[in-house]
Amino acid sequence: MPRTTRYDVTTWPVGDAAEDIGEVINSIIADVRDRQSVLGDGDRGKPGAVIAIPPGDYRLRTPVRIDVSFLRIEGSGHGFTSSSIRFNVPAEEWPGLHELWPGGSRIMVDIPLREGLDESCGAAFFVARSGSPRISSVEFSGFCIDGLHFTPDGSDLAAENTYVNGKTGIYVADANDSFRINEMGFVYLEHAITIHNADALSIHDNFIAECGSCIELRGWGQASKVTDNLIGAGFKGHSIYAQNHGGLLVTANNVFPRGASSVHFDGVTRSSITNNRMHSFYPGMVVLANGSAENLIASNHFLRDSEPWTPFQGVGNGRDDLFGLLSIDGSNNSVIGNHFSEVVDPATVRPHGVAPTIVSLTGGSGNYVATNHFVALDVPAAPGDSAFAAQVDALLATGASAGFSVTTVNVGAGSDHNTILDSGVDAEVVADRDTNAVRATPGVGVR
Amino acid sequence: MPRTTRYDVTTWPVGDAAEDIGEVINSIIADVRDRQSVLGDGDRGKPGAVIAIPPGDYRLRTPVRIDVSFLRIEGSGHGFTSSSIRFNVPAEEWPGLHELWPGGSRIMVDIPLREGLDESCGAAFFVARSGSPRISSVEFSGFCIDGLHFTPDGSDLAAENTYVNGKTGIYVADANDSFRINEMGFVYLEHAITIHNADALSIHDNFIAECGSCIELRGWGQASKVTDNLIGAGFKGHSIYAQNHGGLLVTANNVFPRGASSVHFDGVTRSSITNNRMHSFYPGMVVLANGSAENLIASNHFLRDSEPWTPFQGVGNGRDDLFGLLSIDGSNNSVIGNHFSEVVDPATVRPHGVAPTIVSLTGGSGNYVATNHFVALDVPAAPGDSAFAAQVDALLATGASAGFSVTTVNVGAGSDHNTILDSGVDAEVVADRDTNAVRATPGVGVR
Amino acid sequence: MPRTTRYDVTTWPVGDAAEDIGEVINSIIADVRDRQSVLGDGDRGKPGAVIAIPPGDYRLRTPVRIDVSFLRIEGSGHGFTSSSIRFNVPAEEWPGLHELWPGGSRIMVDIPLREGLDESCGAAFFVARSGSPRISSVEFSGFCIDGLHFTPDGSDLAAENTYVNGKTGIYVADANDSFRINEMGFVYLEHAITIHNADALSIHDNFIAECGSCIELRGWGQASKVTDNLIGAGFKGHSIYAQNHGGLLVTANNVFPRGASSVHFDGVTRSSITNNRMHSFYPGMVVLANGSAENLIASNHFLRDSEPWTPFQGVGNGRDDLFGLLSIDGSNNSVIGNHFSEVVDPATVRPHGVAPTIVSLTGGSGNYVATNHFVALDVPAAPGDSAFAAQVDALLATGASAGFSVTTVNVGAGSDHNTILDSGVDAEVVADRDTNAVRATPGVGVR
Repeated sequence: MPRTTRYDVTTWPVGDAAEDIGEVINSIIADVRDRQSVLGDGDRGKPGAVIAIPPGDYRLRTPVRIDVSFLRIEGSGHGFTSSSIRFNVPAEEWPGLHELWPGGSRIMVDIPLREGLDESCGAAFFVARSGSPRISSVEFSGFCIDGLHFTPDGSDLAAENTYVNGKTGIYVADANDSFRINEMGFVYLEHAITIHNADALSIHDNFIAECGSCIELRGWGQASKVTDNLIGAGFKGHSIYAQNHGGLLVTANNVFPRGASSVHFDGVTRSSITNNRMHSFYPGMVVLANGSAENLIASNHFLRDSEPWTPFQGVGNGRDDLFGLLSIDGSNNSVIGNHFSEVVDPATVRPHGVAPTIVSLTGGSGNYVATNHFVALDVPAAPGDSAFAAQVDALLATGASAGFSVTTVNVGAGSDHNTILDSGVDAEVVADRDTNAVRATPGVGVR
Repeated sequence: MPRTTRYDVTTWPVGDAAEDIGEVINSIIADVRDRQSVLGDGDRGKPGAVIAIPPGDYRLRTPVRIDVSFLRIEGSGHGFTSSSIRFNVPAEEWPGLHELWPGGSRIMVDIPLREGLDESCGAAFFVARSGSPRISSVEFSGFCIDGLHFTPDGSDLAAENTYVNGKTGIYVADANDSFRINEMGFVYLEHAITIHNADALSIHDNFIAECGSCIELRGWGQASKVTDNLIGAGFKGHSIYAQNHGGLLVTANNVFPRGASSVHFDGVTRSSITNNRMHSFYPGMVVLANGSAENLIASNHFLRDSEPWTPFQGVGNGRDDLFGLLSIDGSNNSVIGNHFSEVVDPATVRPHGVAPTIVSLTGGSGNYVATNHFVALDVPAAPGDSAFAAQVDALLATGASAGFSVTTVNVGAGSDHNTILDSGVDAEVVADRDTNAVRATPGVGVR
Repeated sequence: MPRTTRYDVTTWPVGDAAEDIGEVINSIIADVRDRQSVLGDGDRGKPGAVIAIPPGDYRLRTPVRIDVSFLRIEGSGHGFTSSSIRFNVPAEEWPGLHELWPGGSRIMVDIPLREGLDESCGAAFFVARSGSPRISSVEFSGFCIDGLHFTPDGSDLAAENTYVNGKTGIYVADANDSFRINEMGFVYLEHAITIHNADALSIHDNFIAECGSCIELRGWGQASKVTDNLIGAGFKGHSIYAQNHGGLLVTANNVFPRGASSVHFDGVTRSSITNNRMHSFYPGMVVLANGSAENLIASNHFLRDSEPWTPFQGVGNGRDDLFGLLSIDGSNNSVIGNHFSEVVDPATVRPHGVAPTIVSLTGGSGNYVATNHFVALDVPAAPGDSAFAAQVDALLATGASAGFSVTTVNVGAGSDHNTILDSGVDAEVVADRDTNAVRATPGVGVR
C-alpha cells in the first residue's frame, strides 16, 4: 500500500482550501484519476478515495468536477444555522448575535455567475461522466454547502428573502448508480441537490433548508430513496421533486414550510410517499402530475396552516384553495390512512367563501382513497416577528378553534372509476356516484 | 489553515482523558471559543470543531459544558452491552464472564452527586446558551455514555434494578436548532437525553436502553424527528416523551420494554407516531395526554405481554387494564391501521375479571379510529432466569393460546363526536352510539 | 492513554493488507484481545477498538475471526457498482468501460473453497463466541465486500449469472447483542449477511445487491431492525429472511428484483413489515410461513412485473401465479393499507389462463386484511439488452395498458375466521362467507 487514499483538503500541497477549496479538490481528483490509469489488473479495480474536510470555512470559487466513481467527500459537521432568521434581524442588532453564519465543515459557494449561464454553471459540485458504466458510488457526507446570499428578483421582497441566486449545491448531469448523500447541510442555495437519471440513489438523514428547491430528481430514474431528512424549500420551489421515476421511496421525512410543494411527482409511477410529516402554508402540498400512476400515499401527516412570520406574510405559491392539499392527475394511485389538518382563517380562503378542497382528483381513473381523516379548524392568523416562536405558537394553537366546511375529496370531471371510502361524510365528498364508488364516513348519530 | 479543527481527547495537552474526560473536553471547547472571537470577518463565520473519542474507557468527573455552535463530538463505538443482565448474575459467576462493562468509546459518568441538586447537575454533557441565535448544530455521534450503577430507591428492588442514580447523559437547557444525536449508546442513566425547546432536532439510529427515561423533549418544540432508534426505558420512565411539541415525527423505532410508556405526549399537536414497533409489559404504552390534538398514530405494532424475567416479576407502572394500551385525552387525533396484541394471563388482569381496554378515549372529541386489528390471547406467564431467553420464548409463544374478551375501543363519558370504524366487532366497542359514529368490524358469518 | 485503539490496516506491521487483509485484521484482533486480558479493573472494562480500511483493493485469503465485543470495522466507501451488468457486456467491449470492478474500501473475497465445506467456511468475516455474556456491539460500517465471481451451477445460465459461489460476507454463528451493520456495500456473494440468534440487531442504510441472498436472520431472535436499505437478491435467494424472530421491524427498505422473495418469515411473530417498497419479477414476494403470527404488513408498495433484461429471461422462482404475491400460513396477522400492482402479460400467467392471486391465506385463522388496493395491468413484455434502461422503461410503462382479472384475496380451505374488508370487489375475494367475515370493496355505480 504505497500511498494513502485518504486526502485532507487542509494538507494537500496544491491550492489553499480556505481561499478556493474547489481548486484543491479538483487537484486531488486529478491525482485519484492518475492512480486509476490501469483499467483492471486481474481482479483489482479502481477503488477511489476519500477527501476529508475538517470543520472550517472554505471558500469555493472553482466548481468541483467529479468524473470518477468511488469518491467519498466527507466533513465533520452539517453546520446548519438559520441564515433566513439572521438576515431578517435588523443589521444594527447583528453585533449582539452569537454568530452570523452557518458553520461545521462549511463550503462558501462564491462562484462568479453571469447572466445567461446554464444552471449547472452555478453548481459547487458538478458530476458528469458519459459512457459505460454509469458513474457509481459517489458519496457526500457530513459537510455544509452554503450559498451565502440570495439576490434581488425584481419583486418587493428583500434580496435575502428571494431564494434566488443561481447557485446549486450538488448537480449530477449524467446517468448514475448507487450515489449516497448523507448527513449533509444545505442552506441558501437556489437548488440544493439536482440529480439526473438516478438509479439506486440514497438521500438520507440530511438537513436541507432555506434553499429555493431542495431535492430535484430530473430526467428519469428508479429504485431510489429519499428518507429521514429534515427539508424545507422556499416558496418558489419544491422540497422534493421527481420526474419519470419508478420505485421511488419517499419516507420518514419531516418536510417543513415554505415550499411551493412538499412533494411534486411529474410522470412518476409505482412509488411511495409514506409515513412523512409535511407542513405547508399553501395548497398543493403533494402533487401527482402528468399521469403519475400506481403510487402509494399512506400514513402521512399533512398540515396546512398560514404563514405566521412577518417577512413572508402575503407570499403564496399562486394556488387557490380549490387546488387541494393533495392533487392527483393520474390513475390507480392509492391514498390510504393519511391525516389532513387544514387550519386557516376562513377570511383568507381564495376564492372567497369557497369550501377548501383537501384531496383533488383531476384526471385519470382507478384511484383508491380510503380511511383518511380530515380536520378543518378556523384559526385566526396571528403573525409574529420571531420565526420560530411564531411558528411554534401557531403549531400548538388548537384550543379555541371551531370547525369549518371543506370538501374532503373532489373528483373532477376528468377523473372517474375511483373508489372513495371513509374519507369524509356524504356532503364532504364531491364525486359523481354513478362513475365512482363512494362510501361516505358515517356521521355521528347516523346508524 | 494554520491549526487543525480536529481534536483528539487522547492527545490534548490539558488533563488526562482516562481520568477526567470532562476536564479535557472543556479545555478543548475553551480553545474553540478562543478561535471564535471574531464575530464575522466578511462572510467568514465560526465553524466549530470536531472532538474525537477513540475507543476506550474515559472517566468523567467534571460535566462538559457546551455553549458553542457547530461542535461535533464523535466516538467509534456505541458500546452497548447489557449491564442489567450482568448485575442480575450472581457475583460469584462474574469471573466467568467475558466482560463486565459496556465498551466502545465509553464515557463513565462519575460525577459526585449530592442530595437536592438540580437534575441538570448530574448531566455528563450540559448544553446551555441564551441570547440569539439559538445554539445550533451541536452533534453527538458514535460513543457510549454509561452511568455505571443504579442506587437504592427505598423499595425492595436490588439497587442495580432501580433505574435511579441522578445521572443524565445529555441535557440541553436552552432553545436550540438543528441538533443531531446519531449512533450513540446510552446505558444505566436515570435520564439518557433531556432536551428543552428543540427545533429541527434529529435523534436517529441510536441505542438507548436500560435507562430510567430515554428521550425527553421538554418545554416546547417543533419540526423534529425521533427515528430508527432501538429504545427501552425502565419501568418508572418514558422511552419517548414530548411536551408541547408540534410537527414531531416519531417513526421506525423499535421500542422494547420495560418503560412505563413507550411514547408519552403531553400537549403535543400535529405530530406523528407512525410505523414503530412497540413492546411493553404494562398498560399505557402510548399516552396522548393533556389535550394532545391532531396527531397521527398509524401503522404501529403494539404488543403488550407480561414480564418474563424473574428480577422484575411483580413490578408494574401503576396502571390497571382499563387504562388502555393507547390512551387519548385530546381531540381530532387519527388512529389508523395499527396492530394491537394483548397477550396476558387473564388471572393477572386488574381489576380482577374485567375485559382489558385496548384503545381508550377519555377526553376531547373528533378522534378518528379506523381499521385497527386487535388480537387478545390468553398465555400463562412463564417466567425465566435469563433475560433474553425468557423474552424470546414469550415472544414466540402463540400456538397453544386461546382468545379472551377485550374492549377494543372504549369511549369515556368525557369524549364525544368520535368516529370508530372497523376497530372491533359491535360488542367490543364501548361507545355511546348517539354521540359517536361507530361502524363495527363485521363478525364472521354475519352478512 | 498509552496506545491508540484506532488501527489502520494499511499501517499495521503484520501482513500486507493488499495481499491478505484477513491476516492483518486477525493480527489486530489478537492485539486487542491481549489488551483486554484484565476482566475488570474496578469499573474499567474492555472497550475494544476501531479498525480503519481506507479506500483501496484488499484481497482476503484468510477469513477474519471475531470473538471480541466492541469492535468496529469501518471503511470509507460502500463501493457498489454493478458486476452483473459488466459481466453481461461482451468481453470485447470491456476495454471501453470506465471500470470493471466495485470499489470504495473493497474487500476482495478470495478464500480457497473446497466442495463439502460448511457454508460458514466461505465467510469473509466469521463471528463466534460462546459463553456469557453474548458478544456485543460489533459494528461494520462503510466498506465493500465483493465476492468477485459466481460459478457454474450446472444450469444453462452463464457462470456469472448463477448467484452461487459459496462465499458469505458476514457470518455470525453465536447469540449476539446490539450488533450494527451500516452503510456497507455487498456484491457478488452467495450470502451477504447471515446472523444467528440476534438480539437488538440493526441493519441500516446498506447497499446489498447482486447477492444470492442478502439478509438471513437464522435460529431465533428478537427486537431487531432492518431499515432503510437498498436490497436485491438473486432469483434463488431471499432479500430479507427471518426465522423464529419476535419484534422484528422491517421498514423503509427499497427491495428490488430479483429475489425469489422480498421478505420471507419462517415462524416469525409480532413483527412488522411496514412502509417498504418492494419490486419482484415473480410471485411469492412476501411469505409468512410456518405459523408466522400477529405480524403487521402495512403501507407497503408491492410491484410484480416481468423480467425485462435479456440474460434472465425465462428464469423464475418455481412459483406459479396462484401462490400469491403475499402468502400467509399463520394466524392473527394484519394486512392493512398496502398497494399491490400486478403488471404482467396475461399470456405468461401460469397455470395458463388463471386469474393470478394477490393475497393468499393458506393456513391459520384470525387474519385481518383491510383497505388494500389492487391494480392489475396487462402489459406485454418488452425485453431489452440494457439492465437499467429496460427496467426503467418497464417501470414507467402504464399508459396503454388494460386491466385483467385477478383474485385479490384467496382464503384457502386451511384458513378460516379471517376478516377481509375493502380489499377487492365481491367477485375478486374468494373466501367462504360462512367461516370468514368479508366486506367487499364497493363497485363503481353500486350503491
